[in-house]
Amino acid sequence: MAIKVHGHPLSPPTRRVLLTLAEKGIDYEFVPVDLTTGEHKKEPFISMNPFGQVPVYEDGDFKLFESRAVTKYIASAYADKGIPLLVEDPKKLAIIGVWLEVEAHRFDAAGNKLSFEILIKPFLGLTTDEALVEQSEAQLAAVLDVYEKRLSEFKYLGGDDYSLVDLHHIPIINNLMKTKVKALFDERPKVSAWAADLLARPAWKKVVAGLEA
Amino acid sequence: MAIKVHGHPLSPPTRRVLLTLAEKGIDYEFVPVDLTTGEHKKEPFISMNPFGQVPVYEDGDFKLFESRAVTKYIASAYADKGIPLLVEDPKKLAIIGVWLEVEAHRFDAAGNKLSFEILIKPFLGLTTDEALVEQSEAQLAAVLDVYEKRLSEFKYLGGDDYSLVDLHHIPIINNLMKTKVKALFDERPKVSAWAADLLARPAWKKVVAGLEA
Repeated sequence: MAIKVHGHPLSPPTRRVLLTLAEKGIDYEFVPVDLTTGEHKKEPFISMNPFGQVPVYEDGDFKLFESRAVTKYIASAYADKGIPLLVEDPKKLAIIGVWLEVEAHRFDAAGNKLSFEILIKPFLGLTTDEALVEQSEAQLAAVLDVYEKRLSEFKYLGGDDYSLVDLHHIPIINNLMKTKVKALFDERPKVSAWAADLLARPAWKKVVAGLEA
Repeated sequence: MAIKVHGHPLSPPTRRVLLTLAEKGIDYEFVPVDLTTGEHKKEPFISMNPFGQVPVYEDGDFKLFESRAVTKYIASAYADKGIPLLVEDPKKLAIIGVWLEVEAHRFDAAGNKLSFEILIKPFLGLTTDEALVEQSEAQLAAVLDVYEKRLSEFKYLGGDDYSLVDLHHIPIINNLMKTKVKALFDERPKVSAWAADLLARPAWKKVVAGLEA
């Protein structure tokens, strides 16, 4: 198998890359990185990503890091394979681009903090920062208000079709649905239906089943 | 003039978009948004960007927000005009994509905080958070260490040529050079030369001159 993804099974960015490959029907080898021993901060990993974070994408001599750069590459390089995740029309692609930035800078900024504070920290024996949780919940609620309006106009955030924008949200939504933050989704009917639709995608179920096997 | 950019003359994201248009040699009309009266949080602005932030790009009925989505659109849609800012080769484009993410998530996360705390807050009569400055300086130093190594291998972050990656850094570098954070650049010869090269670009000088006129 040519393509390797070096990552951690519970890392949302790792899962984002694996899900993109799964939607495209591309075979890959998952190479677990042991974060508990700091494997990601040492050679040979640090030569693949100088910032020492998972995931890293490896296809022979070609190596990439930053999960959203990896998914964009896969979506473009394998445009004709599996589910289309981007579009060719420059203006429609630009609209997808806007919402890709919204995910990265607004949704993830709040959602990833909540996932870490509420779900990951207790698992690691660390104490949840309740003030940060409250602040991040307010930020996420404001983002989801905009999403509710957007999803009343279009079926998906980027337009009428599922795209890389929606995909990028899935790993964090999956985590948040296991916490009290689920209420912020439940209160918004369009957001709630969109989240349920995303989590039901066969490619996502396949990725999770593969990691938990 | 068809293209309008709604923004604030001192906003780094606004300047990022204007610089992209200037590099492409595309005429635009700059429409100042009065942030002091909250014009960006009210109609009609809020209909163009539901998150109420500058800039907004307007070309007739076609409107975009999120500065990095706008610059990517301009770079692609006007690929053959002015200076090339992206490349066609999918693998080279993916490498540029990696460093675009690094700018957005690592450089800007620290650099924008420093610019705001040291330069903007005193201007607004607010008190600089010295602990946050210290923390952000450490973060920025770690990013610049990686840049120093990268720039010893390639002339620019994305490869041998100036690209959208380098461009995205310019407005924040311009601000940081007016502060004590300049020392973090001066200590690193490759980073220092790269920053000087970027700030000397005719398109940047033209944008700044236009805003300060």
